[in-house]
Amino acid sequence: MRNIKEIVSQLTLEEKAGLCSGQDFWHTKAIERLGIPSLMLSDGPHGLRKQDQSADHLGINDSIKAVCFPAACATAGAFDRNLLQQMGETLGNECQAEDVSVILGPGVNIKRSPLCGRNFEYFSEDPYLTGELATAFVKGVQSQGIGTSPKHFAANNQEYRRMSISSQVGQQALREIYLSAFETIVKEAQPKTIMSSYNRLNGVYTSQNEWLLTDILRKEWGFEGYVVSDWGAVDDRVKSLEAGLELEMPSSNGINDTKLVEAVRAGLLEESVLDLAVERLLTVTFDYIDHRRAVTWDKEADHAVARQIAEESAVLLKNSGILPLSASQKIAFIGEFAKKPRFQGGGSSHINSFKVTNALDEANKETKIIYAQGYDVTEQTDDVKLRTEAVEVAQNVDVAVLFIGLPDSYESEGYDRTHMSLPQNQTDLVEAVTAVQPHTIVVLYNGSVVELPWADKVAAILEMYLAGQAVGEATVNLLFGHVNPSGRLAETFPLKLEHNPSYLNFPGNGRDVDYQEGIFVGYRYYDTKNLPVAYPFGHGLSYTTFTYSDLKVSKDTLTESDNLEVSVTVTNSGTCRGKEVVQLYVSNQNANHKRPIRELKAFDKIDLAPGESQKVTLNLTPRSFAYFSEELNDWYIASGIYNIQVCRSSREVICETEVRINSSQALPFKVHRNTTIGELLEQPNCQSITKDLMKRIAASFGDHNEESESSAVSDEMATQMMSSMPLRALLSFGILTDDSLEETLIALNTVVE
Amino acid sequence: MRNIKEIVSQLTLEEKAGLCSGQDFWHTKAIERLGIPSLMLSDGPHGLRKQDQSADHLGINDSIKAVCFPAACATAGAFDRNLLQQMGETLGNECQAEDVSVILGPGVNIKRSPLCGRNFEYFSEDPYLTGELATAFVKGVQSQGIGTSPKHFAANNQEYRRMSISSQVGQQALREIYLSAFETIVKEAQPKTIMSSYNRLNGVYTSQNEWLLTDILRKEWGFEGYVVSDWGAVDDRVKSLEAGLELEMPSSNGINDTKLVEAVRAGLLEESVLDLAVERLLTVTFDYIDHRRAVTWDKEADHAVARQIAEESAVLLKNSGILPLSASQKIAFIGEFAKKPRFQGGGSSHINSFKVTNALDEANKETKIIYAQGYDVTEQTDDVKLRTEAVEVAQNVDVAVLFIGLPDSYESEGYDRTHMSLPQNQTDLVEAVTAVQPHTIVVLYNGSVVELPWADKVAAILEMYLAGQAVGEATVNLLFGHVNPSGRLAETFPLKLEHNPSYLNFPGNGRDVDYQEGIFVGYRYYDTKNLPVAYPFGHGLSYTTFTYSDLKVSKDTLTESDNLEVSVTVTNSGTCRGKEVVQLYVSNQNANHKRPIRELKAFDKIDLAPGESQKVTLNLTPRSFAYFSEELNDWYIASGIYNIQVCRSSREVICETEVRINSSQALPFKVHRNTTIGELLEQPNCQSITKDLMKRIAASFGDHNEESESSAVSDEMATQMMSSMPLRALLSFGILTDDSLEETLIALNTVVE
Repeated sequence: MRNIKEIVSQLTLEEKAGLCSGQDFWHTKAIERLGIPSLMLSDGPHGLRKQDQSADHLGINDSIKAVCFPAACATAGAFDRNLLQQMGETLGNECQAEDVSVILGPGVNIKRSPLCGRNFEYFSEDPYLTGELATAFVKGVQSQGIGTSPKHFAANNQEYRRMSISSQVGQQALREIYLSAFETIVKEAQPKTIMSSYNRLNGVYTSQNEWLLTDILRKEWGFEGYVVSDWGAVDDRVKSLEAGLELEMPSSNGINDTKLVEAVRAGLLEESVLDLAVERLLTVTFDYIDHRRAVTWDKEADHAVARQIAEESAVLLKNSGILPLSASQKIAFIGEFAKKPRFQGGGSSHINSFKVTNALDEANKETKIIYAQGYDVTEQTDDVKLRTEAVEVAQNVDVAVLFIGLPDSYESEGYDRTHMSLPQNQTDLVEAVTAVQPHTIVVLYNGSVVELPWADKVAAILEMYLAGQAVGEATVNLLFGHVNPSGRLAETFPLKLEHNPSYLNFPGNGRDVDYQEGIFVGYRYYDTKNLPVAYPFGHGLSYTTFTYSDLKVSKDTLTESDNLEVSVTVTNSGTCRGKEVVQLYVSNQNANHKRPIRELKAFDKIDLAPGESQKVTLNLTPRSFAYFSEELNDWYIASGIYNIQVCRSSREVICETEVRINSSQALPFKVHRNTTIGELLEQPNCQSITKDLMKRIAASFGDHNEESESSAVSDEMATQMMSSMPLRALLSFGILTDDSLEETLIALNTVVE
Repeated sequence: MRNIKEIVSQLTLEEKAGLCSGQDFWHTKAIERLGIPSLMLSDGPHGLRKQDQSADHLGINDSIKAVCFPAACATAGAFDRNLLQQMGETLGNECQAEDVSVILGPGVNIKRSPLCGRNFEYFSEDPYLTGELATAFVKGVQSQGIGTSPKHFAANNQEYRRMSISSQVGQQALREIYLSAFETIVKEAQPKTIMSSYNRLNGVYTSQNEWLLTDILRKEWGFEGYVVSDWGAVDDRVKSLEAGLELEMPSSNGINDTKLVEAVRAGLLEESVLDLAVERLLTVTFDYIDHRRAVTWDKEADHAVARQIAEESAVLLKNSGILPLSASQKIAFIGEFAKKPRFQGGGSSHINSFKVTNALDEANKETKIIYAQGYDVTEQTDDVKLRTEAVEVAQNVDVAVLFIGLPDSYESEGYDRTHMSLPQNQTDLVEAVTAVQPHTIVVLYNGSVVELPWADKVAAILEMYLAGQAVGEATVNLLFGHVNPSGRLAETFPLKLEHNPSYLNFPGNGRDVDYQEGIFVGYRYYDTKNLPVAYPFGHGLSYTTFTYSDLKVSKDTLTESDNLEVSVTVTNSGTCRGKEVVQLYVSNQNANHKRPIRELKAFDKIDLAPGESQKVTLNLTPRSFAYFSEELNDWYIASGIYNIQVCRSSREVICETEVRINSSQALPFKVHRNTTIGELLEQPNCQSITKDLMKRIAASFGDHNEESESSAVSDEMATQMMSSMPLRALLSFGILTDDSLEETLIALNTVVE
């Protein structure tokens, strides 16, 4: 066993400082005399972006040929932990083969706004789904001896001014929405590294935020790896080291190494802090070395994995029955994306794919497909001509399949969208084709939600997202029914951008961005606000149908520390094999403030032959019933009734039952002169004293003239008014004196304790 | 001339402390030896609630017989300053006759949520409209030598826990939305008193909030009267006096008088603070005495004024052409409210009306009306029987007029609504009647907005709100076209309660309520969020039509200190006389954060005969173009284009033009190491240095491989990414050193100053 503390003790101060930043763009520093190797970290996470020369972290220069898997926007739709684990294993194996020690991902920021330029790299608007899928991915990668770097920690939900802006987020929203997935990953999969984000969080750069990097990440969650900065995210190197950021990337050209050395020499930084950082770095470094092994990777085999993932991830948004297609139909594929698909986004995640398939070529293997370009994705040529050709083609076929979506320039790392529309020439194409062809199907290639004002006019919509380099085969297999669609939306499709919860405060004022919507992100907002949406979270169709029966819970009454098993039987009631995502939501209306009407707390994906049934058991934990109480500064489970809902989407409850929680947790409560009668009535132990006071108030209201027609105050209304009175109001009614008020407070505080 | 300072100097410490609270429920204290009288203050503001014995401030006990005018929810709809002034004059005269020195009102809190129990006492969701109408009312009352008490100062927008809750409101929302009307009233009409509210504002009781009562109210706005507490609102009397609250009401039974005396004796309160408070109180007291005169009031004449105001205030929400009614039609009035109208709300504003008219009796003077009760407003008898009778009646007439609305118990001072629905028996009645009678008209009696899910099924809707004791004549005059409806909605009718901007944080958690929607209150929210609504702010129909032409502005280019005259010609293009509300909105998209798409900044009401035209001139001031900048802690006018829009409602622009403002105001800007390239590009003086830096960054990106198909980063995208880089990022690119960064900051800060 290697003694890392012993190695650290042999390093000079300069060497230790040096180890805390990169040697260059992609490598850590070696110290050969002590056997410390230089290791490579590479961009990911939906493929390997291993650069050699002309390195950059913005997707500008080339990397080695690799396999581009579907981006997280797509894979989230699979709602399938096993699939994400398999993707992780495949990537981990590629890293082993290429001697890449850490792949920089997964990206687990929450989709706060549809406009965030990097949404395609993130999973969902839901923290539970994000946490579950990302954990599976991390487990998969790390099972191959390769490190991961869940990013960007934390509250980095936009690209605009990402290196300077402060995300202003309340504690409840932070814990429930923005930190939740990181917490799950750390606790369940112990990632080798975590990447701090560019932005500030509540005023402090996350790369030097001790609360975030040490108090929460290490002390509360038990993180054992090291924290690496996003490339160029470090502002003050000494502060960041003290806060808990071990590795600055890329190289600071020696500038920050020197600052660390000087700070130690000047007594401004404890050398023990540096020692601990190096110890953490070397622990991960040698862990990689200890798991090095000679492996090979097979590009074609990994391409097949990429295809399978794309197939499992696609979401069938709408289907009048026109899908699946039959090879006997006369079919047109219209749109440049049929031939040159968009399958990944721009920036650091950009993969140099060794091959890319397209739907047109793949479908031509099934039957003769007529093609029309329909639009120019670069918007540089005459759309009218292309559109006219397309309409002509569409008129003379049985079915027209339109391939549309977002061009590269619309979504990328580095900047946000400013609207949620498709390019005008594509919208015009849909309008023109649907005007002549009722059997129009739309295939979407896009990394984030778009407005679909024409949705009512088309017969089917297949959302492929950015499906990776095997997009061609995957699309065709789904369209022709060789694979039954089973993806579900991991984000709401709102009707309009303005309906998004962050709309009024996105992207902020240039210095900070207030997360004023709090916990009401995604479906938590749309559903609670009862807004019409295009397609809700969790929505997705299949070529078969599923029925549910026998919803059961393992107990009806729980304490705050109990788990709950929920079971339900699912039957494939259709005529073809298919996969169903069983979604379990909890509706918790027991807070002293508004809660989302329901939240996803468990899910599973099952595969059923026609007529087959399966009993699915899902587990809820105490956390499934908790919310983060800012008063308590902790997770809190309130007593009350909780609805357990099996849903087809966040908007459609299939069956439900309820459980009662009798919690022994209590929120802090102290009686003072401005405590109201109403607050006292909520405390079981205060009833007797309070009701006595209420009688005396009622008496002091005087002769309520019962016969008078002019008084609009009923006894019930008087009681309501009373409940908002603070105790000190009884002074002016002459019911209490200063002294007897003091005595009453003491008496009440004695009984509430 | 009376020397008030001299009088104060002759008072003992005990006398001075005593003058700072009431003698009883409704009177100030007299000090006979110095000729200081005891004066009466009385509840209002839509009538006189003068109590004698069994006094209370909750509307429980009787007051003298008086005239109940329409409540503010109604009068706001008139959009008519002259009308509000006339109402104020009438009330002021009543006060003179009854020796009431101050009438407690108007209520000018903003309607943040439709659920606020006291919304019926408030004007609008719009601060400009509220400020204009309340100012006219105050001028009217005070022209009679009577004081007013605009209330409740401030941010008292709910009844729930009103005596203890803290309204958490940002500075911008406070200034633009919640303080704005008070500011206008103080500056334009100098009310004799202001009433502080029950609640806390950002943690501090408004009754002891020095920032609010002294810094803003007196120092910034120039208020010269005294501040009176809402009845029972004082928590800490010494603090409240120091903060600027002169009069505590009602009597504290001597408790707080003693505390003031003790505080002065103990050196904890400067006696000069008490002296100043008494001086302010006596100034108002003697002002009343100096304007005392013997007047009489004529109840019937004032009833006629109440009727006219009700007629001008009602809003015709919908009309298929069925209105006005004709006496030759066979007409049924259905609904208990036709006979027993609801015309005012519960609580301290409750008036003991000397008579109340109802629509059924009044209409029977025109033609024979068939009546059916339809529902029981107390919900205590068999609705099915009443509904069946009503359907039978409705089937056999030409037109059915349904009188529905909110029962007393639904809206009152003291508690809030929990939903926005009408009683189920009324909704059922509408559904049942419209199923058999297409010519159904709905008349609404309610104090705040309700959901109208059946709106598509009725032929007309007349919103009367709480129209005061002359409601019967007013309703009938409008229905039969003796008066042409001219009211406009002073609040949006949303489709659902959940759509309201405050929905997710109303009424708070019991201790505080976060105004998270900020400035996006009412139409500022619905319109900017592009939400469908039932009826927008400013909406209201007429029996005639109006056309607009010749929109002109007095100049195209303004500075930040210029006024702007806007003129437009309005023509009555219909066949009957009618009044039109000319609404002028400004659309200001020149902030560094989202602004409402448009805001009401001027309006006027004109009366036109058929075919008649009138040129209307409206004035915009610098404030019309300003927003409150939290960075500047002041009103700020940004340079840029402003759209000047004449609208039929907040949703419908009739005609518009634009002006350019070249403002010399600037927001604070200082360059530091985390200032971004993008921020520098926005500063005209930084262009040259910044562009040079950008060239060096671009060069450092290395050989952008133009031929590579794998790079998705265009030059444009690279520029976008660059703009979010902070200056310190250039250190890691090797473009700047610590020293040259320091020099660059100095150079940049030199040119921006």
